[in-house]
Amino acid sequence: MTVTLHVCTTCKAAEAVADGEPLLGARLHAALLAGEVPEGLRIVGVACLSACNSGAAVALSAPGRWSYVYGRLTEADAPDILLGAAAYLDAPDGIVPWRARPAIFRKQSLARIPPLEITNV
Amino acid sequence: MTVTLHVCTTCKAAEAVADGEPLLGARLHAALLAGEVPEGLRIVGVACLSACNSGAAVALSAPGRWSYVYGRLTEADAPDILLGAAAYLDAPDGIVPWRARPAIFRKQSLARIPPLEITNV
Repeated sequence: MTVTLHVCTTCKAAEAVADGEPLLGARLHAALLAGEVPEGLRIVGVACLSACNSGAAVALSAPGRWSYVYGRLTEADAPDILLGAAAYLDAPDGIVPWRARPAIFRKQSLARIPPLEITNV
Repeated sequence: MTVTLHVCTTCKAAEAVADGEPLLGARLHAALLAGEVPEGLRIVGVACLSACNSGAAVALSAPGRWSYVYGRLTEADAPDILLGAAAYLDAPDGIVPWRARPAIFRKQSLARIPPLEITNV
C-alpha cells in the first residue's frame, strides 16, 4: 500500500511574503520532506489544492480509501501531519480511530471524499 | 466513464431544523436526484463529508481524474451543480475550462485532490 500526501506548495494563507522568500506552502512541503517520513508515504507537491481560503492545505489519499483534506496548517505542524499519515497508512482501511488522530486532523478537516467503487476503476 | 457526485446528506449548515424535517443536505440530495441528471452521473448520498464548517457540500470524482469538493450550497443550487457535473463528465480529462464552470464551482471550492497515479491502483 502506498499512501500519497499531496501538499499545496503555493498556499500563503494571509501571510505577507517578501519577493524571493518561500511561500508558507513551500515551507510546509520542505518541512514534511525533512521529517520522519514513514515507509510507504509518498509526499507530492502540488501547485494548488483550491483550498485557498483555508491554506496551507494537504490531502491524504490511497487507492480504495477515503481521501482527507486538512487546512490552516503551518510548517510547525509537519511532525503531526506525518504521524497522522503514518496512522492512515497503518489502518487496514485507512479509517483511523478518532482519538488516534492528531488534533490538527480532528479540528482542521476541510473535507473527506469516499473511495470510488472498484467497479468504476 | 462514470462520474460520482457524493452529496453530504447530514449537512445542516447553521440552519435550525425542526424534529422530523429533512436536513439541508438531505434536501439538496433530493433536489439533485429530481433534477436533470446527465447520463453517466451517479449521485450518492453520504452521511458526512467532514466539511461541517462549510456545508452543504458535494464532491465530484472519477477514476484517474482530479476530485473537487464544493460547499456552502443550498437546494437552489441543484441545477447548477448538475450543469457543472455534466461539464466535468464531458471534459476529456475532467478539467473544465474556468469560464465554463458554474459560478458556485468557481467561488465555492473547498478543495481539489489530484488523481492517484495509475501505478498505485
